Amino acid sequence: MTRVPGVVTVGYQGEPGAFSEEAAATLFPGAATLPVRTLRAIFEDVRGGQLAYGVVPVENSQAGSINETFDLLGRGGVSIVGEVVVRVDHSLLALPGTGIGDLRRVCSHPQALAQCDEFLAALDVEIVPVYDTAGAAKVIAAEGRSDEAAVASPRAAELYGLVILARQIQTHPENRTRFAAISADPTPLAPPDKTSIVFSVRNEPGALVRALDALASRGLNLSKIESRPVVAEPWHYRFYLDIDAGDPEHPLREALEAMEADVTSLRPLGSYPAWRDPQPH
Amino acid sequence: MTRVPGVVTVGYQGEPGAFSEEAAATLFPGAATLPVRTLRAIFEDVRGGQLAYGVVPVENSQAGSINETFDLLGRGGVSIVGEVVVRVDHSLLALPGTGIGDLRRVCSHPQALAQCDEFLAALDVEIVPVYDTAGAAKVIAAEGRSDEAAVASPRAAELYGLVILARQIQTHPENRTRFAAISADPTPLAPPDKTSIVFSVRNEPGALVRALDALASRGLNLSKIESRPVVAEPWHYRFYLDIDAGDPEHPLREALEAMEADVTSLRPLGSYPAWRDPQPH
Repeated sequence: MTRVPGVVTVGYQGEPGAFSEEAAATLFPGAATLPVRTLRAIFEDVRGGQLAYGVVPVENSQAGSINETFDLLGRGGVSIVGEVVVRVDHSLLALPGTGIGDLRRVCSHPQALAQCDEFLAALDVEIVPVYDTAGAAKVIAAEGRSDEAAVASPRAAELYGLVILARQIQTHPENRTRFAAISADPTPLAPPDKTSIVFSVRNEPGALVRALDALASRGLNLSKIESRPVVAEPWHYRFYLDIDAGDPEHPLREALEAMEADVTSLRPLGSYPAWRDPQPH
Repeated sequence: MTRVPGVVTVGYQGEPGAFSEEAAATLFPGAATLPVRTLRAIFEDVRGGQLAYGVVPVENSQAGSINETFDLLGRGGVSIVGEVVVRVDHSLLALPGTGIGDLRRVCSHPQALAQCDEFLAALDVEIVPVYDTAGAAKVIAAEGRSDEAAVASPRAAELYGLVILARQIQTHPENRTRFAAISADPTPLAPPDKTSIVFSVRNEPGALVRALDALASRGLNLSKIESRPVVAEPWHYRFYLDIDAGDPEHPLREALEAMEADVTSLRPLGSYPAWRDPQPH
């Protein structure tokens, strides 16, 4: 890794031109952004202090939660300190001279391919999942693949010298991805108004509803609930909640204490400022 | 499609040797099983009556829910009429003569790759997601790829003439996948004791907890809750519940009526017999 002394380094998954890079640059203007090949490596580098921050995808408005991120958050050692929402407009990119009729393969990240499923189903080409949207564009350019296209951002076309065959090819035009900023230091990027927690419930009828009611009965709203399997115990789950409260004091602290009766484990993942889209000027 | 007159035809996703084929054969002994390339095609053929039944993966004890299945169930036109749980023991398969040190690529279905992530991370090879476990084995055999292995079942090794380089390579040994049987006819395969529903809640604080409480306060237990995004409305979700009750009468009907106050839509996905592992002799 190359570092500029005194400049904060923020890791993101993928290659330059990835939507994750845009998320990192939006949340940390002026910071150095560093491409990292896998989400797992970002968490390891943040946990170990090699990266001050990482920016990782949490959920997409069309394809849903990024399971790997939730599983890595569940392992501990990092806190969520901020979040950002990025518009995801996918384009179909190819080498100059390649037409849509020449295509035999389209490659991209599996989430991007899922987001463009209707457009791609009409193309009658082989769909090839790869690890990154911008990485797919980079390979087509580097290897001169004239029968292949990538699903990636317009910025990736610029960076790698490709042309845009089609724009906004995602199935639903309002396509956004929410990213979390993670750090080994739990200090939020600004005063917090949102808290994420992870917990497992006792194996008793009604335990999940009672645990959720500890929050609801105190007027605390849940903006998201996600379940992921506990791998050591088939058909048991870990639940992830986003709560619209950033103050660790009453009533949130009281609610978390009340949940203890019905949970086998409960851990805060971080309190941080909820993202708000900038107001147009 | 080739059909045997008078024999029920059950579609499964993937190639012969897929775990889905084992699930279909377990739930429908004596039926004809038919490989279908995509989950979407299974749902279409079941909805259209070309297939009497389809057997589709719902969740894996390690990797979690199969998002595509939930999204396809949410579109309607089919009912869940049964379920089956299959042990998933993954093996590393290659051509005879290929050693682990010769490998440059390992291919399989993304879920299978995720389930074997620790074993694969230690191999230092390129990980290539493809559409099916058994399909990965078939391609290696058909194209004579001597630097590539597939993650698939021992049965796929037999079917395609490959050898087993390593057995039970999944990260967690207790690895199981639950499959649902779907049909255009809602009649369950046996007397039902489990019901699945899908609903969306009003955009009001506490609406989700109140909807769940309509079930819990009547002593109805939830065995699973899953959320999936509503694509037309970023950050709104559709919730899928499994309820331990198969009788559509009191108290389940009463609970579903009580939920109406907090939901914008609610639809039963089917009542069916919960799977029980056969007792050892």
